[in-house]
Parts: sequence; structure tokens; C-alpha cells
Amino acid sequence: MTVSKLATDAAKAPPIARRAADDSAIQLGELSELLGYALKRAQMRIFEDFLRCVAPLQLTPAQFSVLLVLDRNPGRNQTEIANTLGILRPNFVAMLDALESRNLCARVRSTNDRRSHHLILTEKGRAVLARAKKLVAAKHETRLNELLGAANRAALLSMLTKIASEF
Amino acid sequence: MTVSKLATDAAKAPPIARRAADDSAIQLGELSELLGYALKRAQMRIFEDFLRCVAPLQLTPAQFSVLLVLDRNPGRNQTEIANTLGILRPNFVAMLDALESRNLCARVRSTNDRRSHHLILTEKGRAVLARAKKLVAAKHETRLNELLGAANRAALLSMLTKIASEF
Repeated sequence: MTVSKLATDAAKAPPIARRAADDSAIQLGELSELLGYALKRAQMRIFEDFLRCVAPLQLTPAQFSVLLVLDRNPGRNQTEIANTLGILRPNFVAMLDALESRNLCARVRSTNDRRSHHLILTEKGRAVLARAKKLVAAKHETRLNELLGAANRAALLSMLTKIASEF
Repeated sequence: MTVSKLATDAAKAPPIARRAADDSAIQLGELSELLGYALKRAQMRIFEDFLRCVAPLQLTPAQFSVLLVLDRNPGRNQTEIANTLGILRPNFVAMLDALESRNLCARVRSTNDRRSHHLILTEKGRAVLARAKKLVAAKHETRLNELLGAANRAALLSMLTKIASEF
């Protein structure tokens, strides 16, 4: 198929806006004006893309965030890390089990308080994190920057951080 | 306040990570620069606040979105509504079970295709939705508007919608 043929086909196809206005399309109505709904849909889309970009390493966004924070804060205990990331304790324990079974992090029993575990990245964990950071920067974040533009991206990050910390 | 003004203010203000920079605070490091993480934290915060504001009616954000869309699109089938809202089918079936058990919506078997169910709001469903909309507008959305300002709120909604539809 030539380029001009493809362009002609595209011109014949109804545009998305027109397609959505026919009888068969579901109307979102007021939902399209709600920030919470828009946030959830954007977050789902970004997580899907993240999973695809980091697929060779089989890391979820939450696992990536845990590896990043453990790398930056070695030797902290489970409760501190879970609270900082806003992850519920049972979910966090399950996530650590998964990361530890892949030898990406280790729980070290505290010498002061034997009920407490300190968390560290393993050498393999640091290597996987380094590869993940490269994939996220090269694929995921670059495309987001292209979509939004650097100034809008900064404004978006600032507003989201404000909501998370002040709302 | 324009988006760029907000970005400038954000640059002047001490970032969250620096404010928390005593010995005992966990450092987020690069995580605080990732849009996906900021989106998730903002979404969690907004959902928490939504639940609190609508607590008298015991509605989750997802249930509220389903009631809104059913009200606007009566008589559509389960698959159409679930796909439009990006809800996985098993989760959607469970949600409908919960809403139907509270007599907020009903599944009506299609006369054309007896395997298909059309969804409608009940009278009680419409009344609960009307009360929920008032609570969301008066408490949740008003406070979000105050926090962000109307122009920033509009810019945020636009960027989130763009991410959800174009990224």
C-alpha cells in the first residue's frame, strides 16, 4: 500500500471525535470533568506503558519504586519503607517475598531488635535497578516528555506532588 | 495563577525531599521525579478524600463512575460499560453484584440476545447518585479547586486526559 493510498483511506475513516458522537458510543458526561477519574485513567495508562518498557526485567512500578528507595536508603526497616511509599503492610511483605525470592533484595535481622528486619539491595538487585533505570529513562520518560513537553511535564509533576502532600 | 507561575513557585519552594532531609527521613531520590509515582500518590490521596466525602453513601470512586455512566447511558450492556471505564470484566461483575444487592442498579436480560444483560439505574440508584454528586461537588471538588486554582485544575485535567488517550 502506497502512502497516498493510506492517506486516502485515513481521510475516508470517520475521525475519533465523530465516531464517539454516534448513537453507539457511550457518553462519559460529567465523568470526563472529574479529576479523580482522569487521574486513575492516566495512571493506568502510564503503568501499562511502564510494564511494557521494563518487560525484559519483569518489574512492576511498585517493585521499581522499592528498589530505588532501598538503593538510596540501605539498612532501613520494613515499616519505614512501606510507610514512605504508602504501601499497605501485607502488600509490602508479599512484594518483599517476591523480590527476595529473585535475589534482588535481602531482609537482615536487626542486631538491636531481633523482631525488626533491615532491608538491603543485593548485588543483583543493584544491577537490575541500573538496567531498569536506563529502560525507564530511554523509553518511558522520553516518550512522556515528548507528549507533554518539558515545561508541562514539570507543571504536572508539581501539581501532582502538591495534591499528594497538601490535599 | 498560571501553570508556568506554579512551576516557578515550585522551583523556589523547598522540595518535599529536602524538607524531610533529617537523618531519620527516608530519601525518595529519583522517585520524586517520576510522573508515574506522583500520579499514583495523587490518585491515592484523591480516592481517600473521595471515600471520606461520600462516606454517608458508602460509594467507591469506581462505583460512583458506574452510576454516572449508567445514568447517562441507560440500557447498555455490561461489556460496553466495563470497556468504556477500563474495568476488568471479573471486577465489573463483582461491582455490579454489589450495586444490585443494594438495589442501586438492575441487570435486565436482553430480549434480542438472552445471554446479554442491559444495565439500568433503579429509582434508588438515581437518588443516591444525585446525593453523591452534591457531596462530591460541595466537598471534594471544591477543595481541589481551592488547592489548585481553576486554571491549574483545567490544565491538569487536560494533561491527564491527553496521557490517558494519547500516550
